[in-house]
Amino acid sequence: VAPRPITFLSDYGDRDEFAGVCRAVIASIEPDARVIDLTHGIARHSVRQGAVVLANAIPFTPPGIHLAVVDPGVGSERRAVAVLAAEQDRIFVGPDNGLLSLALVALGGAKEAVDLTGSPFRLESVTHTFHGRDLFAPVAARLAGKGKLRDAGEEIDPGSLTAIELPEPRIYPDRAVAHVVYIDGFGNAALNVPPDAFADGRLTIGAEVHVEATQRKIEARYVRTFADVGAGEALLYEDSSGSLALGVNRGSAAGELGLEADDEVVLSPGA
Amino acid sequence: VAPRPITFLSDYGDRDEFAGVCRAVIASIEPDARVIDLTHGIARHSVRQGAVVLANAIPFTPPGIHLAVVDPGVGSERRAVAVLAAEQDRIFVGPDNGLLSLALVALGGAKEAVDLTGSPFRLESVTHTFHGRDLFAPVAARLAGKGKLRDAGEEIDPGSLTAIELPEPRIYPDRAVAHVVYIDGFGNAALNVPPDAFADGRLTIGAEVHVEATQRKIEARYVRTFADVGAGEALLYEDSSGSLALGVNRGSAAGELGLEADDEVVLSPGA
Amino acid sequence: VAPRPITFLSDYGDRDEFAGVCRAVIASIEPDARVIDLTHGIARHSVRQGAVVLANAIPFTPPGIHLAVVDPGVGSERRAVAVLAAEQDRIFVGPDNGLLSLALVALGGAKEAVDLTGSPFRLESVTHTFHGRDLFAPVAARLAGKGKLRDAGEEIDPGSLTAIELPEPRIYPDRAVAHVVYIDGFGNAALNVPPDAFADGRLTIGAEVHVEATQRKIEARYVRTFADVGAGEALLYEDSSGSLALGVNRGSAAGELGLEADDEVVLSPGA
Repeated sequence: VAPRPITFLSDYGDRDEFAGVCRAVIASIEPDARVIDLTHGIARHSVRQGAVVLANAIPFTPPGIHLAVVDPGVGSERRAVAVLAAEQDRIFVGPDNGLLSLALVALGGAKEAVDLTGSPFRLESVTHTFHGRDLFAPVAARLAGKGKLRDAGEEIDPGSLTAIELPEPRIYPDRAVAHVVYIDGFGNAALNVPPDAFADGRLTIGAEVHVEATQRKIEARYVRTFADVGAGEALLYEDSSGSLALGVNRGSAAGELGLEADDEVVLSPGA
Repeated sequence: VAPRPITFLSDYGDRDEFAGVCRAVIASIEPDARVIDLTHGIARHSVRQGAVVLANAIPFTPPGIHLAVVDPGVGSERRAVAVLAAEQDRIFVGPDNGLLSLALVALGGAKEAVDLTGSPFRLESVTHTFHGRDLFAPVAARLAGKGKLRDAGEEIDPGSLTAIELPEPRIYPDRAVAHVVYIDGFGNAALNVPPDAFADGRLTIGAEVHVEATQRKIEARYVRTFADVGAGEALLYEDSSGSLALGVNRGSAAGELGLEADDEVVLSPGA
Repeated sequence: VAPRPITFLSDYGDRDEFAGVCRAVIASIEPDARVIDLTHGIARHSVRQGAVVLANAIPFTPPGIHLAVVDPGVGSERRAVAVLAAEQDRIFVGPDNGLLSLALVALGGAKEAVDLTGSPFRLESVTHTFHGRDLFAPVAARLAGKGKLRDAGEEIDPGSLTAIELPEPRIYPDRAVAHVVYIDGFGNAALNVPPDAFADGRLTIGAEVHVEATQRKIEARYVRTFADVGAGEALLYEDSSGSLALGVNRGSAAGELGLEADDEVVLSPGA
């Protein structure tokens, strides 16, 4: 049987060899396993951005092994885990710091989980600073091949896995108080409200929306796509994950509004 | 039969998961298709740089499916297309904004083309902002497998495809007025004149060339390679695509001369 | 027989198509060869960083062909080589400028070597500026397939290969004078001393270490991992290659201490 595909997401960046060495470890153990790099550009140590990006990407990936490493606590007491989701026979491998939690929620939760400390699948010597190479990648490779989840580590209660907390948006009749979930490489800011959060008729295509960020207020137009507003103009749109996002056509919304992750943004449509 | 290889070029960058999610979509549809990432570092929205880089790369790629996405007009009226080149059985998939045109010209033009709007190969739900994931990647995957071009969309006149316009260099007896086609990551500026544009004997290896850019004038030497001039010195050389390029050994020509894409550069050899 | 895997390391960066075109050349020649990108983020022209990163990565890669291109002298007199290591049946392909030397030393030295100038495996036309595409990638692809090393070029004396010189640390009873080998993308500085360079008892987990860099002095703590010190605090740790490294938890050691490659750093434990 062919090995299962492995998707790989991290904050390792592309300047260093960290992601490449993990790919090499996988190829050493399971030469035919296909590695699909989702991104290694998660902001350093941003567990939350990693969790959101992973959860948004999963529906577009083939079921298999999902390796994810954003791990500010590497070498500390945080657990390393492999988790079988309740649906779709997907196994997630990574630190137990919330990184995997949003993807798991979207798949009906965790069905089985093991603690990878002392995993027989790990490399012989495990350093304190590079669990991607020494622990997570080899476990992912073995699980992509013939390795069984129960053999990867010690069984733990799936209910004990760390969940991530996202700020809650507040919806009022005339406005929504949203938050910046993360900012992409183009400076678009993903918000934590879907377009249908607003009462009927308040947010229709073409509507003006008053946007109040921490540092600046602007007027944006709710449109389908970037080309629907002029160059340099702000738009509010349903992004590819189904949430509202704030952008500037051929510009950077984050740059212009001074936005950062977690910032509160007040949206008042038709004001 | 094994699926055909898919080359992939875009301006998605490496910070975000956009290219990775497209790779995941391809792997979901055609697990054995090999994806060859050419680059995702095309300057954002620079259709022309994308077109030039794609055309230069194609001779070095295996015939197959060539997925290219630099798409400032995503979600607008611009067409999405798949195009069979007249030669070498290569199929290009991307927006109809000129991005594919230079590669097609080099392959004898377009033989057949289809409009992908409403393609049966697309994902079930197509967003307005991420056609790479929802439309182009799945079409490329299907065409790499058993999918036929005529089944990918509605036939259109290959003559109706958008062509890209490049500035024309002007050659005089004593000088050439060239343009910066694009600037690579090292700051080298590719120009739109080949070395043999000059009358015989005017541009021979070792010749001094007076270079007049918009903001500065310098003397460069026409040499074979970077190591032929001292560190920090300017050189003019035949780049790997066969055009003249302006560089600085262990430095950045674009930085030192304040060059940007499209800038006029006057070259006077032996002056 | 399946082709052997090819690892690929370079300073080509991810902005341009250079690495991608090399991958395409390999896929054109040996469609089933697996390419494992180690990194293309070596600092431009930094042969030494490339040599160190390659040597550190090799133990984690599957034996095969190891393509490495950091080549400031491309097109000059420097030789292009393919080298069989004495151990593990690994073949290295790249410029003979020291880039391959540290990895070879770790594998018992070079057993056989060929000069690739005029290699029958090269592309038909070899430019002066892009040997990665025209020479190294096609040679690597052929060697991954049925190509024999002796057919790749003209035999040369393995003893004539260029070695790289690293600065030597100096160890005293009360301190060590180390050097910055290279700085990773997070600003951590790898030093050229292992933890056991110090006399017994002087460097134990938890020890304070006085660190004197060129521009600043600081106190660091020798710990296992980043999370063992507070945010913004300096640490000295055994990095994933087994050397000491200087870091700042959730910060950049290089940024804070003004470190650059080759800088001298004086470490006085327990002072």
